[in-house]
Amino acid sequence: MIGRTHGIHAEPITLGLKLALWYEEMKRNLTRLQRAAEEVSVGKISGAVGTFAQISPEVEAYVCEKSGLTPDPISNQIVQRDRHAFFFVTLAVIASSLEKFAVEVRHLQRTEVLEAEEPFTKGQKGSSAMPHKRNPILSENISGLARLMRSYAVAALENVPLWHERDISHSSVERVIAPDATILLDFMLARMTYILGNLCVYPENMRHNLAKAGGVIFSERVLLKLVDKGLARDAAYRIVQRHALKVARNGGDFRQELLRDPQVRRYLSERDIRQIWDLNNYLKNVDSIFERVFH
Amino acid sequence: MIGRTHGIHAEPITLGLKLALWYEEMKRNLTRLQRAAEEVSVGKISGAVGTFAQISPEVEAYVCEKSGLTPDPISNQIVQRDRHAFFFVTLAVIASSLEKFAVEVRHLQRTEVLEAEEPFTKGQKGSSAMPHKRNPILSENISGLARLMRSYAVAALENVPLWHERDISHSSVERVIAPDATILLDFMLARMTYILGNLCVYPENMRHNLAKAGGVIFSERVLLKLVDKGLARDAAYRIVQRHALKVARNGGDFRQELLRDPQVRRYLSERDIRQIWDLNNYLKNVDSIFERVFH
Amino acid sequence: MIGRTHGIHAEPITLGLKLALWYEEMKRNLTRLQRAAEEVSVGKISGAVGTFAQISPEVEAYVCEKSGLTPDPISNQIVQRDRHAFFFVTLAVIASSLEKFAVEVRHLQRTEVLEAEEPFTKGQKGSSAMPHKRNPILSENISGLARLMRSYAVAALENVPLWHERDISHSSVERVIAPDATILLDFMLARMTYILGNLCVYPENMRHNLAKAGGVIFSERVLLKLVDKGLARDAAYRIVQRHALKVARNGGDFRQELLRDPQVRRYLSERDIRQIWDLNNYLKNVDSIFERVFH
Amino acid sequence: MIGRTHGIHAEPITLGLKLALWYEEMKRNLTRLQRAAEEVSVGKISGAVGTFAQISPEVEAYVCEKSGLTPDPISNQIVQRDRHAFFFVTLAVIASSLEKFAVEVRHLQRTEVLEAEEPFTKGQKGSSAMPHKRNPILSENISGLARLMRSYAVAALENVPLWHERDISHSSVERVIAPDATILLDFMLARMTYILGNLCVYPENMRHNLAKAGGVIFSERVLLKLVDKGLARDAAYRIVQRHALKVARNGGDFRQELLRDPQVRRYLSERDIRQIWDLNNYLKNVDSIFERVFH
Repeated sequence: MIGRTHGIHAEPITLGLKLALWYEEMKRNLTRLQRAAEEVSVGKISGAVGTFAQISPEVEAYVCEKSGLTPDPISNQIVQRDRHAFFFVTLAVIASSLEKFAVEVRHLQRTEVLEAEEPFTKGQKGSSAMPHKRNPILSENISGLARLMRSYAVAALENVPLWHERDISHSSVERVIAPDATILLDFMLARMTYILGNLCVYPENMRHNLAKAGGVIFSERVLLKLVDKGLARDAAYRIVQRHALKVARNGGDFRQELLRDPQVRRYLSERDIRQIWDLNNYLKNVDSIFERVFH
Repeated sequence: MIGRTHGIHAEPITLGLKLALWYEEMKRNLTRLQRAAEEVSVGKISGAVGTFAQISPEVEAYVCEKSGLTPDPISNQIVQRDRHAFFFVTLAVIASSLEKFAVEVRHLQRTEVLEAEEPFTKGQKGSSAMPHKRNPILSENISGLARLMRSYAVAALENVPLWHERDISHSSVERVIAPDATILLDFMLARMTYILGNLCVYPENMRHNLAKAGGVIFSERVLLKLVDKGLARDAAYRIVQRHALKVARNGGDFRQELLRDPQVRRYLSERDIRQIWDLNNYLKNVDSIFERVFH
Repeated sequence: MIGRTHGIHAEPITLGLKLALWYEEMKRNLTRLQRAAEEVSVGKISGAVGTFAQISPEVEAYVCEKSGLTPDPISNQIVQRDRHAFFFVTLAVIASSLEKFAVEVRHLQRTEVLEAEEPFTKGQKGSSAMPHKRNPILSENISGLARLMRSYAVAALENVPLWHERDISHSSVERVIAPDATILLDFMLARMTYILGNLCVYPENMRHNLAKAGGVIFSERVLLKLVDKGLARDAAYRIVQRHALKVARNGGDFRQELLRDPQVRRYLSERDIRQIWDLNNYLKNVDSIFERVFH
Repeated sequence: MIGRTHGIHAEPITLGLKLALWYEEMKRNLTRLQRAAEEVSVGKISGAVGTFAQISPEVEAYVCEKSGLTPDPISNQIVQRDRHAFFFVTLAVIASSLEKFAVEVRHLQRTEVLEAEEPFTKGQKGSSAMPHKRNPILSENISGLARLMRSYAVAALENVPLWHERDISHSSVERVIAPDATILLDFMLARMTYILGNLCVYPENMRHNLAKAGGVIFSERVLLKLVDKGLARDAAYRIVQRHALKVARNGGDFRQELLRDPQVRRYLSERDIRQIWDLNNYLKNVDSIFERVFH
């Protein structure tokens, strides 16, 4: 399929690469989540200001062990809220990754692109007014929920600077965001798993879109080949850009344009150009990338 | 041009409508900005805690008048920071509007859509590696800057709850965000004005995209007409959806499909269907909308 | 009572001034809220992309009037979300004002200050472990809730840049923040009204705190008087600072220190100093400030 | 010194405990920072869309090694921005910890508390108008800067969901926040190190504040002792609260009150009460806490 930067066709990639990138990102997120969960998995029974004045550290150790928690090495009236802030900002990072995937699905499902679609149950209604529409509503939902997750992180960060041995202002915040953020992220993860596990993929449309711009996506290779054959980079850039933009704007076939240009032909033979027009050039390292991700 | 909801073709609109919607939004933003500027255009010379202990209110009145400010009716050591917070959140709203316009330009410039493009100076290089590309970098820049503007609003809101007759914690924040936020918004406005004032518009591509989906965008009108002629809404929806999704997925011509369906033809004559296929049905109220916006 | 800047005793004020400042701030907030409510009190029945393709503007006008809404002059599938963003950021400003009041109550209730306390029902338990404590938990609660309100504003701002004629990503956000933010602010306002309407005020402690620092709060007046009598400002500052810091740190009586200092006495008679030690000097303009606020 | 919760005197602690708590928190922050720095210390030279189409992975490996970076296992046009978001939210957590310490210094320096003060250079002016003041301006500065650091985190989180193989909207954000956030945090750390390394501590005032509330801080121990001797907890709570609140409000001596109450004396001997009035009861576990932090 075509790779896109700035929303514009760039160079060919594969759908597998796109997904492998996300897979690697979720590996990072899993590690982050485990560490963040560890950070808040501490307990304290050290009394009103953390001095163990009325109760001994042994009690704390005993209860924490029973609860699967580590005793916080030092606390005041509470476990310090930098731990929880770190937990919630980590959730916000994960949610933002999920939003990236969701935005991609929404883009791929656009009418003009249609390289993939969210699962759509047989018999499901689309738009109530417009029967022809299949809308990526699950992914749009995830986009919105990521905004909520980011906002919870803001509140959690403000919870850190409590007064003295504790003030209770963090409590009202946590009563809302602790259940809401964790339940929401669980929901988002489940929903994204469903979307990707049941994604409708349209290879025909990928091929069609790849071909679409008259071959201008090969422009970088033409440029490099011209330079390779001795043309100055700047001159080569101007020539390639002129042909490529003309085709991109007015239609036509980039390869034919090049073949017809005597200035180009001074450097490139028909065979040179045919060799450029080979998708495998772009994909020759895909396996080695996969190796790095899925080792 | 086609209107899009959820990124999917919906029903026809005009580019003028899109721009008129933004124009109306900027009218709101202008009013908001004027009010927010008024809110912070107050002065105070009421002494260390606001009591005019060493200096009389007349001095304040005199200096404020000379400075084009209104005397704050009551102050402590400073003008209260709810005024400034309101100012900065207002800037963030305006910046978010600008991001909406920027995102639209980025969408319209996508290779598959290409209904409009940012201005591109003759001779300007696009991507350094890929000569065929014209990237919407001005609009992408505005998208990013809007994030900064939103973040400044967060800091400004935290500046409100100062201690007693004033603590100075707001100062370090304002030394950064006051120049940065105001200069940035000015820059964003200038840049967006340039983009829209010099936007490249491609009516041919608009027409082409409109035609693209085999006419399924008329599905709502077919549905309503069927209901009008006596078919139950749910039954009508099923029929229309079946044809529309088939065409949207596999290509073909929605009108032909309908004409060939005996069940449809029981309710709709060829003339009925031809009448549906008229873009003017969609645009008949455009002028009256313009009247409301540009009165 | 003493006015405090940077948490340090500054110059005398009155509790009335503190409250009048808040009253003025809530006047601003009321105006802001009314405007923000107006901004979202619009309706639209303009169809799937805002063109009134299937329904006439008269229907919109009729329904809006019945619903007490103004027809939005122009819309696409929805009323634009800059209106809602403006509404939610306004709520966040108001909540931040409430937090300022709450922080003040928390400060005044500190054991060492104790100039005011939240209402405490007869028979109410304080800390479960420490029976001697009366904690400002209502105000602390408001402090926390203000963080939530600020965070909702962040999410609302991100809702503005929707795609084309609408994408539905804002919906999941609004299903959470629309009820939560409005209910929370209502709760905060009711709670703050209760706190301030039933605040326990301790004038004895105010007097005691005023006297506390050995009279150094009169330092600015001593400084100005010395300058007035011909001493250079910098020299005067050094003398006054030396006495004032000594008393503030080691105890003692600032007035006696001054009376005993021959250098001071070269400029100030006993009568001069007695005149400085008059709280009314600080409060002579209070009524005129009240006049400005409560006219 | 007295420990405070909700801003109210709770039970005795030591300054060492307060600082050890922060030390432990900064140990966590150091680990977090190292991990976050590792997350962004990756490089990529994988081409325009990450396929190594024109350049081999060996080049990436070579350059990364020379630059002290790890090759990102998979990338598209850029290293993914979840890495940077994680970095900036981590900085925001650290900054929020620093704000907690700063708020504590500001509290301890309050006129009524004055248990510690920021370093104040000999000859330094305080307030320009009020020579008697020494303001905690360094700590207030840190409080404000923490707001900026939190706001940068918000922008960094919004940078994650880029389009397809990259859009450049993150760039304008990072050009501002990357230098600003890292320089600011460095500055905050240096400033806080200076403040704590040169903090003025006033043990006399700590002792004075401890004694201040007529001994009511021993209320929890009295309560527990009464229960221990057979009185029902609720009854004991009522008695202790009555005496404690009376003393806290009207002055007097909590111990004397208890000694005079026949109901109390039915359970507690004079010796019992004297044993309660021993600060060492509160501090007996301090060393073992230190052991846990500084092992």
